[in-house]
Order: sequence, then C-alpha cells, then structure tokens
Amino acid sequence: MNRMTYRIEKDFIGEKQVPAQAYYGIQTMRAIENFPITGVKIHAELITALAEVKRAAALANMDTHMLPKKIGESLVKAAEEVREGQLIEEFIVDSIQGGAGTSINMNMNEVLANRTLELLGEEKGNYFHCNPNNHVNMSQSTNDVIPTAIKIAAYRLSEQLLEALISLQTAFARKEIEFDDVIKMGRTHLQDAVPIRMGQEFGAYARVLQRDVNRIKQASKGLLIVNMGATAVGTGLNAKPEYVERVMFHLKGEVAIPIELAEHLVDGTQNMDAYTELSASLKVCAVNLSKICNDIRMMASGPRAGLGELKLPPRQPGSSIMPGKVNPVMPEVVNQVAFQVIGNDHTICLACEAGQFELNVMGPVLAFNLLQSLKILRNAASVFERFAIEGLEADRERCKNYVEMSFGIVTALNPHLGYEVAAQLVKEAVRTGLTLKELILERGLLTSDEIEEILDPIQMTTPGIAGDRLLRPMD
Amino acid sequence: MNRMTYRIEKDFIGEKQVPAQAYYGIQTMRAIENFPITGVKIHAELITALAEVKRAAALANMDTHMLPKKIGESLVKAAEEVREGQLIEEFIVDSIQGGAGTSINMNMNEVLANRTLELLGEEKGNYFHCNPNNHVNMSQSTNDVIPTAIKIAAYRLSEQLLEALISLQTAFARKEIEFDDVIKMGRTHLQDAVPIRMGQEFGAYARVLQRDVNRIKQASKGLLIVNMGATAVGTGLNAKPEYVERVMFHLKGEVAIPIELAEHLVDGTQNMDAYTELSASLKVCAVNLSKICNDIRMMASGPRAGLGELKLPPRQPGSSIMPGKVNPVMPEVVNQVAFQVIGNDHTICLACEAGQFELNVMGPVLAFNLLQSLKILRNAASVFERFAIEGLEADRERCKNYVEMSFGIVTALNPHLGYEVAAQLVKEAVRTGLTLKELILERGLLTSDEIEEILDPIQMTTPGIAGDRLLRPMD
Amino acid sequence: MNRMTYRIEKDFIGEKQVPAQAYYGIQTMRAIENFPITGVKIHAELITALAEVKRAAALANMDTHMLPKKIGESLVKAAEEVREGQLIEEFIVDSIQGGAGTSINMNMNEVLANRTLELLGEEKGNYFHCNPNNHVNMSQSTNDVIPTAIKIAAYRLSEQLLEALISLQTAFARKEIEFDDVIKMGRTHLQDAVPIRMGQEFGAYARVLQRDVNRIKQASKGLLIVNMGATAVGTGLNAKPEYVERVMFHLKGEVAIPIELAEHLVDGTQNMDAYTELSASLKVCAVNLSKICNDIRMMASGPRAGLGELKLPPRQPGSSIMPGKVNPVMPEVVNQVAFQVIGNDHTICLACEAGQFELNVMGPVLAFNLLQSLKILRNAASVFERFAIEGLEADRERCKNYVEMSFGIVTALNPHLGYEVAAQLVKEAVRTGLTLKELILERGLLTSDEIEEILDPIQMTTPGIAGDRLLRPMD
Amino acid sequence: MNRMTYRIEKDFIGEKQVPAQAYYGIQTMRAIENFPITGVKIHAELITALAEVKRAAALANMDTHMLPKKIGESLVKAAEEVREGQLIEEFIVDSIQGGAGTSINMNMNEVLANRTLELLGEEKGNYFHCNPNNHVNMSQSTNDVIPTAIKIAAYRLSEQLLEALISLQTAFARKEIEFDDVIKMGRTHLQDAVPIRMGQEFGAYARVLQRDVNRIKQASKGLLIVNMGATAVGTGLNAKPEYVERVMFHLKGEVAIPIELAEHLVDGTQNMDAYTELSASLKVCAVNLSKICNDIRMMASGPRAGLGELKLPPRQPGSSIMPGKVNPVMPEVVNQVAFQVIGNDHTICLACEAGQFELNVMGPVLAFNLLQSLKILRNAASVFERFAIEGLEADRERCKNYVEMSFGIVTALNPHLGYEVAAQLVKEAVRTGLTLKELILERGLLTSDEIEEILDPIQMTTPGIAGDRLLRPMD
Repeated sequence: MNRMTYRIEKDFIGEKQVPAQAYYGIQTMRAIENFPITGVKIHAELITALAEVKRAAALANMDTHMLPKKIGESLVKAAEEVREGQLIEEFIVDSIQGGAGTSINMNMNEVLANRTLELLGEEKGNYFHCNPNNHVNMSQSTNDVIPTAIKIAAYRLSEQLLEALISLQTAFARKEIEFDDVIKMGRTHLQDAVPIRMGQEFGAYARVLQRDVNRIKQASKGLLIVNMGATAVGTGLNAKPEYVERVMFHLKGEVAIPIELAEHLVDGTQNMDAYTELSASLKVCAVNLSKICNDIRMMASGPRAGLGELKLPPRQPGSSIMPGKVNPVMPEVVNQVAFQVIGNDHTICLACEAGQFELNVMGPVLAFNLLQSLKILRNAASVFERFAIEGLEADRERCKNYVEMSFGIVTALNPHLGYEVAAQLVKEAVRTGLTLKELILERGLLTSDEIEEILDPIQMTTPGIAGDRLLRPMD
Repeated sequence: MNRMTYRIEKDFIGEKQVPAQAYYGIQTMRAIENFPITGVKIHAELITALAEVKRAAALANMDTHMLPKKIGESLVKAAEEVREGQLIEEFIVDSIQGGAGTSINMNMNEVLANRTLELLGEEKGNYFHCNPNNHVNMSQSTNDVIPTAIKIAAYRLSEQLLEALISLQTAFARKEIEFDDVIKMGRTHLQDAVPIRMGQEFGAYARVLQRDVNRIKQASKGLLIVNMGATAVGTGLNAKPEYVERVMFHLKGEVAIPIELAEHLVDGTQNMDAYTELSASLKVCAVNLSKICNDIRMMASGPRAGLGELKLPPRQPGSSIMPGKVNPVMPEVVNQVAFQVIGNDHTICLACEAGQFELNVMGPVLAFNLLQSLKILRNAASVFERFAIEGLEADRERCKNYVEMSFGIVTALNPHLGYEVAAQLVKEAVRTGLTLKELILERGLLTSDEIEEILDPIQMTTPGIAGDRLLRPMD
Repeated sequence: MNRMTYRIEKDFIGEKQVPAQAYYGIQTMRAIENFPITGVKIHAELITALAEVKRAAALANMDTHMLPKKIGESLVKAAEEVREGQLIEEFIVDSIQGGAGTSINMNMNEVLANRTLELLGEEKGNYFHCNPNNHVNMSQSTNDVIPTAIKIAAYRLSEQLLEALISLQTAFARKEIEFDDVIKMGRTHLQDAVPIRMGQEFGAYARVLQRDVNRIKQASKGLLIVNMGATAVGTGLNAKPEYVERVMFHLKGEVAIPIELAEHLVDGTQNMDAYTELSASLKVCAVNLSKICNDIRMMASGPRAGLGELKLPPRQPGSSIMPGKVNPVMPEVVNQVAFQVIGNDHTICLACEAGQFELNVMGPVLAFNLLQSLKILRNAASVFERFAIEGLEADRERCKNYVEMSFGIVTALNPHLGYEVAAQLVKEAVRTGLTLKELILERGLLTSDEIEEILDPIQMTTPGIAGDRLLRPMD
Repeated sequence: MNRMTYRIEKDFIGEKQVPAQAYYGIQTMRAIENFPITGVKIHAELITALAEVKRAAALANMDTHMLPKKIGESLVKAAEEVREGQLIEEFIVDSIQGGAGTSINMNMNEVLANRTLELLGEEKGNYFHCNPNNHVNMSQSTNDVIPTAIKIAAYRLSEQLLEALISLQTAFARKEIEFDDVIKMGRTHLQDAVPIRMGQEFGAYARVLQRDVNRIKQASKGLLIVNMGATAVGTGLNAKPEYVERVMFHLKGEVAIPIELAEHLVDGTQNMDAYTELSASLKVCAVNLSKICNDIRMMASGPRAGLGELKLPPRQPGSSIMPGKVNPVMPEVVNQVAFQVIGNDHTICLACEAGQFELNVMGPVLAFNLLQSLKILRNAASVFERFAIEGLEADRERCKNYVEMSFGIVTALNPHLGYEVAAQLVKEAVRTGLTLKELILERGLLTSDEIEEILDPIQMTTPGIAGDRLLRPMD
C-alpha cells in the first residue's frame, strides 16, 4: 500500500494536514470536516463560472498594478485550466455548506494558488509566492465573486433551458397543425362538455409554454446585474475603482454575456431577488408542464380501459411483471421534475427570506437548488420533446366515436330550445337510449336540416363560426 | 315571531324551498347546502367585477338583438345596482366551492334575474319573464365570465397594491437620504463586518422594492387578457361573433381597464398562468418585505439588551403584563402577511396544477387566495409605511459607538498589512484589550496618519472612494 | 341621524376616543387602526376558549385572594356571557395582527372589564373599579393565555374533525363491502394493469383514512399541554404558584378537556411545535383525500367520453350553459380544501420558524390558519360523505366490459408462458384484433381449460388465491 | 485506445447495444437514454436494500420450488455481493426517472442476472440461463419490491437520524445544566422582557428536540409495513401465498428490522402516506432546528456590535477578505439543511398527491427526496452537535450586564405598583437616566428591602418562586 503523505497548512484558527498532492488547502479541509452534508459536489457550471471570475479578477489586478505580473500570468493560466474542466476533482466541498460560499471560494482560491505555484515552479502550500487570500482573492470577497459566479452559471443554464423550451413549444405548435382536424370531446370537470379539436388543445399548450419562455427570459435578466467590486458589504472596501472597471471589462469579454455592474452595490450584495424571481418563473413553468403532462397521460390512458385518445411512442417495457405493458414514462418524468422544481422553489424562498442585514448567508443551498432546477427542467423538456411529443399520435377514430356517443353537443341546442328543454332531452336520452336527434325529431322541436346544421361538429369547434348559427332571439 | 315564508323553485335535479324574499334562487340554495366550508363570503371586489361583466353581456346581447330590450334594460339596471354594492347580502355562497365558480355565477344570475323581475313588476321566481340561465347568462358560460371577473378584480387590486408599494418605496428612499450620514457597523453572518451607512441599507430596501413594483406591474399585465365569448371550452359555442365584439366594447368602457380578448380562446379558458404568475410576483415581494422587516426588528431590538440602532414609533402598549413595553407590531404584522401570501401562493400553485383538459375547476380556491394576497399585501404595505417607516428614527450615537468598538474596520488594513497579519492583530486586540490602532503603532506597522486615512469610516463606506486609498501593490 | 358619542381612554402611549357604548376600549381601538389587514375577524371558537381561560383565571385569582370577590364574581359572570356568544360583535380585531396576540387578549380584557363595570353599576371606561390589565389580566400574560386558548379551540375542532373523518372512513368501509363483487381493471400509470375489485379500492381508501385519523388523534395530544402561569417568558413571574394550581383546576373543569400544565414552562411558552405537528398531520390527510377525490373524479368521468365506472349523486346543475351537465362538485370542493390546508400548513411552518428567543410573535397568523384548516377539513369531510360517498354507485357492467376488453389479464399468463412470449401475444392481439385466448389456442400454448382457470377474474383479484394457480417452476 | 465493444440485447420494444462488459442490460440502457435528468445516482442505501429484497425473493422462490436451485444459489450470491457494495458503479440510472421505479428495479434485475450468469459460467446477456424478468424478478413487481426497499432504506436512515438527534438533544440538556446559573434578559418581540436563565433556554431546546425524536420515531413505524407479494396492484397475482410467507421470513432475517406484511395489500401498494408522514415529521423537526439555530446565531452575534451572549467554537476563517472574522457556519449549515428538508417535504407531498388508482408512479422523486432529507438532517445534527454545541460558551458577564441595564425587571413591580404606575416609571427612567430603583425610592413607592427582594434576578427566573413574592391583593 502506498502511504498518504501530507503537508501542513496554517490559518489563524490553527493548522491542518493536507494531502501532499492536493491542490486544495487547509480551508477546503476545514470545509470537508465541517460540512459532510449531501455528498453532492458543487454544480460544475458554477465551478466554471467562478474560474472565469477569478481569471477576470487576476487580469484586472494586473491592470491596476496590484498583482505582480509574474504571479498574475500564471494565475490566469491556472484559472483557464479550471475553466476548461481540468482539476475538477479538486473541488470537493459539499453543495450545502455554512458560510455563504466562503468554502467554495476558498476551495477555488486554494486550487488556483497551488496550481499557480506549480506553474511558477514552487511547492504546493508555499503560499508566500502565491497566496489564496492575498493574491488569488485580491480585491474580492466571497460576497461579490460567489453571487456573480452563480448568476453567470444560472444565466447560461437559463439560455439552455429557453432553447429546450422553445423547441418543445415548437413541437406543440407542430402538433397543433397535425391534430387540427381531430374532432374530440372537450371535457370540463372531467365530464363530457362540448366538442373541440385536438389541435386546439395543443395550441393551448404551445401558447402557455410561449408565455413561460417569455417569463423565464424576462426573469433571467435579473441575473445580468452583478456586484463585482462590492467586496464584503457593498461599499467596495479594498476594491479600487479602476479594478472594478477592469474586472467588469475582462469578465464581460470572458463570459460573453451582457452583464452589468449593479447601480447600487449594497443592494446588489444584500438582495437575492434575482434568484427568487427566476425560480418563481421556473415554478410557474413547472406547474404548466405538469398540467400538460397530466392531460397527455390521461389522453393516452388505456389502451382498452382508458381514454385512448393519444398514443405515446413506446420508450421502454413498462413493467417487470406485466408483459407488453408500456407506460407513459416521459410525461411521468416531467411531472416529477416539476415537483422537484416546485419544492426547490420553496427552499429557495426560505433561503432568501433568511437573509439578514448586508448579506444572505444561505447562498449555497440557494445556488444548489436554483442550478438544479434549471438543469432538470432543461433536461426534462428536451427528452419530453424528443421521446414523447415528436412521435405522438392521435387515435382519430376513437376521438370521433366519443363525440358521436356523447350528449355534450346538446349545448348547441341551448339557444334554440332553451336550457330546461335541452336538459330534459338529455335525461330522456339517458333513460330511453334514444339519440338526441331522434328525440328532437320525434317531438318536432327542430327539423332534420336544422339539427344537421346546428350539430355539425366541425363548425361547433370554430370560434366565431361556432357562435353564429341559427341563434334565435329570446322572447 | 314572524314565520319564514318560501317559494318553490325547480331545476333538472329537483325542487327546493327558497326564502320568499330572497333574490337568490334554487342554485344558490344548493350551493349553500353543498358547500358550508369556510364561512367566508366571496370577495366583494369579485362581486362588483362580475356585475360589470353581466352588465356588459346584457348590453351586448341587446346589441345583437338576442335579448329583448325590455328585459335587457331592467337587467342592466339590476347589474348596476349590484355593482354599486346593493344587494351585497344576497351573495351568500362560500369562497371555497366545487364547480369552477358555477355557484358564484348562478348566485349572480339568480340575484340579477329576480331583481330584474322586480323591476319588471313580476314576482320573484317567475323566471319565464327573466330566466337566470337563458336571459342573464345568455351567450356566457361560467368558464368565461368568472375568470374574466376574477381578472378584473385582481387587476384593480394590483393597481392599489402597486400604489401602496410605490408609496412605501418612496418612504424608504426618503430614509435613504435622512440616514445617509448614519455610520454603522455592517453585518454579515450577524457578525461585525465593515462599516456601512444606514442610508445605504434603506437605499437597498428601496431598490429591491422598486424591482418588486416592476415585477408585479409586469405580472399584472397577464390579467388583461380575458376570454369573454369563449363559453364552455373556448370554442365560443353559442356566442355570436357580434356578441363577442360588443361585450368587449361594453366591458372595456365599464371597467376602464385596458383588457383585451385572448388571441386563442381555448388557451385563454384552460390556462391559469396569469394567476400563478401574479401570485409568484407577490410571493417574491413578500419574501423581500419579510427580510426587510426582520432587519428592522433586529435593528430596533432592545431598548437595552438589543442592537438599538433604530427606534420605531410606538403604536400600542406591547404587553398585557410588562409595563412600558412597546413591540415592533408593524413589522410583525408585515411578516405575518408575508407568510400568508407565501402560503397562499402554494395553494394557488396546487390549484393551478390541478387543471384538467379544457378547464381548471379549482378557480374558487384560486380566486379566494389570490384576491386575499393582493388585499393583505396592499393593506400591510400601507400601514407599515404610515405607522413604522414614516416616523422611524436612527440612534446615531449608538450606531457610531458600535463602529468604534468593533474590529471590523481591520478589513481596510488588509491590503496594507496582508490578511494574516491583520487577522493576528484582531486576535491580539481581543486578548489584550488594546485597540487596533494602538497595536499597529506599537509594532510600527503604519504611521498614525496612514491609519487615520485608511480607517476614516466615512470614506470606508463610499464605493469608489472606499477602494481607492493607499492600496499598495502586492509583492 | 344620531350622532356617535365617545368616551376618552388613556394608556401610556396617549389617549383615544372610544365609542361611548363600546365594551372594547383604547387598546382595541389601537389594534383596529394598526391592523386593517384581512377584514376577517378572529375565529369564534378562539373567542369562546379565551373567555373560558379568563373565567378560570378570575376564579383562581379569587381563590388566592388577589382579586376582590366583588369584582371577581362580576368578572366571572361577564366571561360566562362571552363564552356563550354574547357580545361577539365587540370582538373586532383582525385575524392577522402584530404583537403575538396582545390585541386579541386586550380586546377580551377590555370587553370583560367594561361588562364587569356594567354589572357593578359603573360607567364603561371607569377602569378604577375593574381594570383590563390589573384585574382582568391578573396573573396572566398574552404569552400564556393566548396559546392556551388557541390550543383549547384547536383541540375541540380536532375532535370534531376526527368525528367527521371517522364517519367518512366508515362510509368508505361500507362501500368496500358494497363494491366487493365489482370486478374492474386495475390501473397503474393510468394504463390497464390487472383486474381488481372496486371494493378493494374503497378498502384502501378506508385504511389510509384510518391512519389519518390515528395521526391526527396522536398529533392533537400536543394541544393538551398548556402554559398557564408561564406569564411573559415562562418563568412565571407575577403568577403565584397557588394561582397556577387553581387556574388549571378551574380551566380543566370549565373546558372538559384533559389539559395538563407543561412540565417546562419556558419550553411551553417558546415552542409552537404542537401547532406544526397538528398541521402536518392535517396536511398528510389532505394529500390523501385529494388523491382519493382525484380517483373518484376520474372513475366518475364521462358519462360517455370518460371512464364511467362510478356515478356520483347529482348535487346541482353543473353548468350555466351546458344543459343536463352534472359535475363532481363534492370531490372538487374537497380537492380545493386540501389545497388550502396544504398552503395553510406552509404558512404555519413559516410562522413557526420565525419564533425568536422566548416567544413566537407570529401566533395570530398561525392560529388563523390552523383553526381554518381544522374547520374546513371537518366541513369538507362531512359534506363529502353525505353528498358524494353515501349515494355513490358503481357501473358494474362498464367495469366488467373493461376487464373483458383489456390485455392486462395477460400478466396471469406470465408464469406459464414467460414474460417475452406473453409480451409478444399482446403485440399480436393488438395487430390482429384476435383475443389473447384465440391466439393461445391457435398456437397450442395452453388448453382451453387451463386458460379458463388462469384467467378467472374473480380468483385473479384475491390475494393468496391470485398467486396460487397453476404456477409452474421455471427451468 | 481500446475500442468499446458491445453485445446486442432485445426486448419487446426492439434491440439495443449494451457495452460488452456491462452487468446492466438493455432496460438500463433505455433508462439512461430516457432519463438524463439530475445526473445524481440512486442513493446507495436504496441499492443495498433492494439487493436484500432480491436475495430474500430468490430464497423464497427456491423454497417454493419455482426457481431452480442452481440458478437461485448463484443469484443469492450475486445479491449478497451487491448488498456489500460491489458492482455499485453498475447502478447508473438517474434518481429522477419515469416509470415508478421500473428502471431501478430492472437495473438491479439485469445486474443480478448478468452476475449470476457469470457465476454460472455463462456469457453476459445470455438470459436463457438466468433472465432478469423471469428469474430475478420472479414473483415480484416493481410495485412491491421498490416500495419495500425504499422503506427499508428509509427506516435505517431514520434510526441513524434518531441517534444523531438524541445525541444532540443530550448535548442541549448538558448545556441546560452548564448554563443554569447564567442570568440573562429574556426577549419577546426582540424586545427586552424579563430575566431568564440561559439554562432554561437550552432546556427548552432539549425538550422540543425530545418531542421531535418521539415524532420521528412514531412516524418511522409506518415504514415497517411492506407490501411484498402484492405484485402489480396489490392482488398478489403471480405470487404464491407460500412465496409471500417465505419472502417475508427471509427478508426479516436479512434486514434485522421488524417489518410486517401489510394487512391490506391493495392499500399497501397504492398509498404513500408512510412517506408523507415521515417527511412531515422531518419538516417539523427542521422548523424547530432552524428556530434554534436562528436564536444561537443571534445570541452569538457580535463580537462587538451584536448581542454577544454566546461564543461558538471557531471552525474556519469566516471571510476571504475580513481578517480574523469567524462566522457561525455550523448553525448556518443547519438552517440551510432545514430549508432543504422543508422544500423536499413539499416535493414529496406533490408527488404523493399525484398518485392515481392502484399506484403512485412518482416513487422515484419521492424516494430521492425522502432519503436525502433523512441523510442531510442526520449529518447536520451530528456536525452541529460536535462542532457548535459541545464547545459552546456563554459570556456570563455580558448577559448579566444586560439584565442590570434593562427595564424589563419592572414587570416584577407590576403587582406591587400597578401596570400604569410601572409603565410611567419606565418612561421616567428613559427620560431622566435614573434607575428604576432610584425613582421608586425617590417617590417612596417601596422600601429598599422590598425592592431588593422583588427584583432578585435569580428568584425572578424560577417558576413557582418567581410568582410568589410579596404579591399584594388588588383592591
């Protein structure tokens, strides 16, 4: 067995053994000891964004001549490596941690410091030559770099989510056209109502999703306001104005996202409403997607003892015991993702409400949930589109049969016969087994031609046309 | 004792006794029997809006010659009376009810029918002359008039809420100016951080509230899209196109709100995202207000064993047992309202997710919670401003003392002495009881003038200036 | 017009006009001014319980000779009147209010003081003879009497709720027997699974509700621990030990509920977990009821274009536009109540989490929501039983048809033919339109007798029997 | 580079390439394709429990002679290996997935089948000799084995959580004793109230946590009722009664937990209330822990500009910019865990409410959240105890100073001077800067000895004693 070797690192609390080869250092070790909570590592997207922030800060500190060029150039290179996903296994702190993200920041500061030392030909841990706090974290505070990195990561994921949702929305819109001629019974209260076209239903899905896209797009704009240079509480202590100008310049170039500096840095440091706003928009979208999936699962219920109006593409055997059973696994996973996003929103709100004075220290749990929500919603929307909506088929025959069997069309007779007479006809039809048409003719309430015209299911489902046939004034 | 007398009314389910003098009828009686749930009546704002919708529908039905003028004119008059708050005691159905609002709609239809009958000189219940379904509800469905009325009521309350929030935001902004010179310790993690000005804190409150105003304003726009003429499922069955055009014309005139007809009526009937979106924006605002109130209550804690940085105007004796005690009752009530709004949002989301196919039948509980949230947030913002923020005072002396006593200013020494040296100074100051300045001079780390300049609390709290003094390049 | 006349009352904040005839006084007036929030008055059950607490306190204060007998006896009489519902219109403070219930308590103290004065032949407001604080609130604090009264009110409502739930549970159990022979398709993932009996489904509903009853019963026990005599923070300052003993004696006798004094009064004053525990149990019940109602609404869907397995008793015309339509309004209202209870639980948790140090000042919003949840769940369970479950009927024919049409029974062939062969048979049956039996015989996989035995739907649905027929060992 | 080689596997949907060396098979591959959602693997505890279930099922199937001994013995050995954590990297399906856990179950079935084949000397994928469905899943359904495994995993984690909570509760109880003589100001509404002892506060924490332990213990009992043998819908189709008896026998022995078979298997399969009940109890605990942590963070606020009543053990440097700053990271992480648990509870309730008919297909997201809540609460309680409570110290001097400075003690004068006089004294003391004692003597309201006795802070904080000194009857 090879023996683990260690180096000793110190801070003002004391000293600790650090694995000799590790790029992380004492503060990461402390965080590992203090926060063995979820076992889930920080989202990789956040690590990437933080590396970009650190790179920009190093460049800015060189621009203002605060950071020696020799150290700075190696530091920039180290940050670029981390940005590209190298050393990812060195980021070991837990997703839920005390300290407002200090441990994430210090994990990064230590990794970058030690990688810089390595590039400079120095020993790991020899922080005289490049110090995690003094050099890597120069002009920065956890309270500005971590929120900034979270926002960058979240904004990118928002963009990916929007792409997935727009694609799904387009798929619904295609089904709106494809199913435009599928006449089916509309249902309210799960009771037969009046005819509708399946294309109209998918048109409604497309439109609510379109609004979700707009809402999320609007909400994601809040992420563009960052607080670099705010340092500890937003007063910018220890951050030169030139630094702030330069770090924003470099960061914008680096991330290719139109970020802006907060107009009021105390506000920008203290308030987390950009997160709650975005999460709220995700939640609204999740609620809508869940409703749509519920509809689709009900319409696809059967094949024999359900509604059977839709056929989902089979994706996997649905049962380990029932042969041939295929389940609507794609809408099911979307439902579950929706529940997770809604629950996450709750956590995010609790975390946000717990902010106190100049800082919200609950940032880690907030970022953990927000980034997860963005990712799983993106992933779910994407597979839902590809594996459920693209190949979705309507059972036109079945849909038509329901309309013909149903009494719901009697509503169209309402303006002609009055509500009470129409209601009695339905009761009579149920009792006798006769059709509504037979009863109407038998009683001489309308002529056959009138009935044909009134009960034309195509016309009945077209707004404008639907309301414009044979209506007689009341007396 | 006078004996209650009754009339008998019938529907297709059967017949029921209705109090002879009542304007409501059999369907209201059924609702009373079926839904004795909360004991809380429908929000008056919703009754008003529904009366306006009914008035507009009656006018439109007269325009299209479907509704005889004689009936229509009395019906319009009846609707105007209800709009003005007359007959309010006739609206007796419960706020939580099955049936997607059918019972609210029928309660209105029956009251208007009977009042119309009265105006026509007919007996109550003699529905041949004016029928709740055939005349009053002509061209309408619960599924279009109820959502439309909810949206009108909610939009008006949104406007009132926005007015209250803008006023509160302005009050915060005034305090930003008033407290601009109050130097105090900034706190992160509830630990002394670096100095800040109290005006900056109130500036942050004003800004987050400004964003809340924008969010709620944006979200309330969704309420402007209504689905009049959609009838049962959005296909517009039984609603003449001319009716739809006319009813929108009359309704716009009536309500003086820029409502528009939904472009896609099936979508407009089925989807409730306008409600969830608005509620989400209220929730985000509630979270922010709650955080602000927590801060203010902590800053006002004391008078002797707390922070004592703020003095709230005394509003009422705070204890039935502790003489002279005054409690921060105004922020406390805002906290509670925030919790209610957040819980209501949860209910609203659950109700929204439960929509199925062409309709969401959970409208009543949704409206109950949404309108309540709007009202209580408006009321809370208003009294909070008048009774807590307007007369709020800072204890400048105490704030200053904290800064002078604190070690947080050592952060400003960080760029000059390095993080480790500064950290050691703090430990030393705690141990010895000496001030940081004394220690620095004793050790010859900085000159007295340098210290004065670096530790000037005013400059330390000004972004730009705060970061631009004496910073020395690292080596 | 008669002019409103006023009396002037004073407290250490200042003075205020109070309507001359009012039993409430200055502190109630302050509360009205400070908290115009919901417009919803305090739950009557809480007023009753608080009157009982006040009565017991007055008796105890007389027992310890602290309260003069002459005042005490009138005060007891006044409290009894309020307990009986008299003067209910004098309780005007809002359900959501700052101050941990101080305003509720003072509203009561003032009403009782003025009614006592009246009984003593004194003028209202002449508090020298009976003072709201010194006499009525003697030995008490808002922080002990309000939680105690909330608990008494909540316990009583819990008992009523349990009665309603047990009755509903019994109704489900009756349906379990009535529907025991209704063979139907079991559904998993909304897909046809294997046969089941409807009685088994209702048996499952009865059992989960039985557990809910147990959970709520268990949780309600926490309400029995009260903190009378704790006064402000649980140290019992200003409450004589004899008083505490006597007040518990009188209160137990008064309320006829087995309340006990908290073993640790600081804990008993500070912690609200009795409320969150009870609310959590209500929420679990609400989730279960909502699921049951969803099932029932789906089973009752149709009549023609739905599952149509159940027929709910018609309770009211279901549509203002669609004649003869009847909606499942009773399960719908239960769903909505469930959503309200779940949202209320959220509010309650937020309020509970906001407790600080010796007291949770969010009691008013907490009580408002908890008592509402108890009441609406009780009411909903009751009408759901009477109006939906009692008269519920199964469509046996339809249920049987589904089983015969379905492929789900193929699962029973699994152990005989293997999963893959069985799965292929289903695909073949779908393709050819042949029945499974025909295909099996055609291929000589089983004899006709074997098929009959294996596919007997009655046996298939009986645990024990279901698994014990013809199973062949694998090889 | 070595090239990936594949084998081809088939099911009734089609065929797929599977990496040649993989133990998982085609259905796992389908799940990977269908559900790339969270990137988080199934909790290891669930894999372990499922392996135990599979082992017991294999033994039971051998007992009933359904499973050939040769296959069965290898299968048992394979299950034991997986139970011990071997092949853990073969479990690759996502934590959130459609299909009620079918993919988890099939991942396990495939891994066990292929490992069994390997042990039998057969090729992977040669399922003739050991088939994932026919042999490994014999007598089982996803719908019984997955809930059973979830319950076993959750029960074990509950036991670990209870151990951690009991340990934390004991630590609070130790502090109750240690801090028994620390007199401090009690605070209500964050305002100075009356004196209390810090030991009493920690006693309250210990007691509420004791109740949480009881609640979680009680709730975890619901996990002991499993539905093995229920197969698809609870009717036990394809599970021999002997099998059910034997599988329960083997499983009990295997897991060493007192599990029992559900009395009503349809109920046991359909209802998820054991999960919501447990999660609710976790939520109640989370709310309490969060409140406690809020208190502790406030009491530890400072060091100079906060309350400074408590000193938390320093765990890590608290700031990357502020030297010497130490933050309350341990209570902070507990707060965040609490928020996560509360949010998870929300997700769990949504998932539970979405059950339909015979099954709740949302099991995966439910298990994901429930097991996470149990783990993170266990972990948080454990580090909170070790790193925050064990070494917690009180600043006795500071606590005492607050009491002496404060006016809160005036409450004790209330019964002696009356509420109004006492209230005036406070106002006077604030105005003049005189102490209450000075004012009382000056006015001759009480003698010096009387004051000493009444205002003894030790006696004032002892229930019983606190209420029993010098109280004079009212007149």
